[in-house]
Amino acid sequence: MKDDTSIRENIGRVTRRRIRVRAELLAAAHQVFTSRGYQDATISEIITVADVAIGTFYLHFRDKEDLLFALADEAFHILRAQIHAALAHSPNEAVIPLIVRTLLQAAYEQRDMFKLICTGETHLLLHARMQQAQQGLIQHFIPAFQAAQEEGQLDSYDPVLLARLLVGMLVWAMGLWFEQDGPEPEVVAEHILFMLGQGIVPPHSMTNTERSA
Amino acid sequence: MKDDTSIRENIGRVTRRRIRVRAELLAAAHQVFTSRGYQDATISEIITVADVAIGTFYLHFRDKEDLLFALADEAFHILRAQIHAALAHSPNEAVIPLIVRTLLQAAYEQRDMFKLICTGETHLLLHARMQQAQQGLIQHFIPAFQAAQEEGQLDSYDPVLLARLLVGMLVWAMGLWFEQDGPEPEVVAEHILFMLGQGIVPPHSMTNTERSA
Repeated sequence: MKDDTSIRENIGRVTRRRIRVRAELLAAAHQVFTSRGYQDATISEIITVADVAIGTFYLHFRDKEDLLFALADEAFHILRAQIHAALAHSPNEAVIPLIVRTLLQAAYEQRDMFKLICTGETHLLLHARMQQAQQGLIQHFIPAFQAAQEEGQLDSYDPVLLARLLVGMLVWAMGLWFEQDGPEPEVVAEHILFMLGQGIVPPHSMTNTERSA
Repeated sequence: MKDDTSIRENIGRVTRRRIRVRAELLAAAHQVFTSRGYQDATISEIITVADVAIGTFYLHFRDKEDLLFALADEAFHILRAQIHAALAHSPNEAVIPLIVRTLLQAAYEQRDMFKLICTGETHLLLHARMQQAQQGLIQHFIPAFQAAQEEGQLDSYDPVLLARLLVGMLVWAMGLWFEQDGPEPEVVAEHILFMLGQGIVPPHSMTNTERSA
């Protein structure tokens, strides 16, 4: 019994250490990638920042690209977790506004990470992951649009295409923060929800002649 | 007098030939870039397709990148020209629906070119031009949103941010055709205009509980 316990404790210690070292390497990569850019970052600099030996690095990651993939997966995982938490904690709130607000807030908090993922030379490497994340988001919205359709509120418009267009606007909006920190995510969310809630083009919107006049 | 005329005719002939050769090089580059990819395309293949000597190539373009820039500029120029023509020919139509329909139709017709511009390794090279084209589009929409605001139809929402979000959705929608040819541009335009015209989220949109039920 005593031996069993100490083995369990030892395994626990090893596992905890592995988890901690992995987290330190990811944090160091995040810092080096976002400050120096992915292309110019070196594993040698990352292990220095993480204070980890090169052999330990290779226990966790195959190469620099593997590290980038792990970072991106973590960023998407955090987004998903925040959306799931919001849905679980506010079961009586309307789904679409809840996801729009939560997603933009979460993306804003991780904006340096998403800038790294979505721009520059990493964009190509992470293209498939971006597509997958967008698909996941679309799947969240589809049931809400289908419900609206069943209630006759979408005429004959396709709920799936509407969900895709909404996700497109959200993904594009996340890029607003790549160049500057504003506008605040709440402001962007409220503008999108205003558009989604009542439209933004008045029935008799301005014609070209009026514009030139 | 006779001499003057023949000089003028000669200059006209030289100019016409230069314009024709330039157009042939651009068409050849378009073909080679979109079939083989920008990175793998060679000037040697492009001049073979255009049936032009290498020395002639360098009268027109500095290098492969210069040719890519010229192609992208032409694609954006065609978009702008089609939007300006639509505005000029339909002075009594509402501006926003007119631009949305024209832009999506024009982008669809040039979808292989925009796929080349917006994806893969050329994406980085053309980033500044893409930004500039988006800014130009935003400027087209701002007066329409400002007019709606003056009529009290936008509450306190920012017409500039709404214009940016609309352009974001349009730019993203253009990417729908990079992987497959559908949905048709008219269908995408009508979905966006439905969203802009009356909103797509019903006032009492489905809650999370209803979704799980």
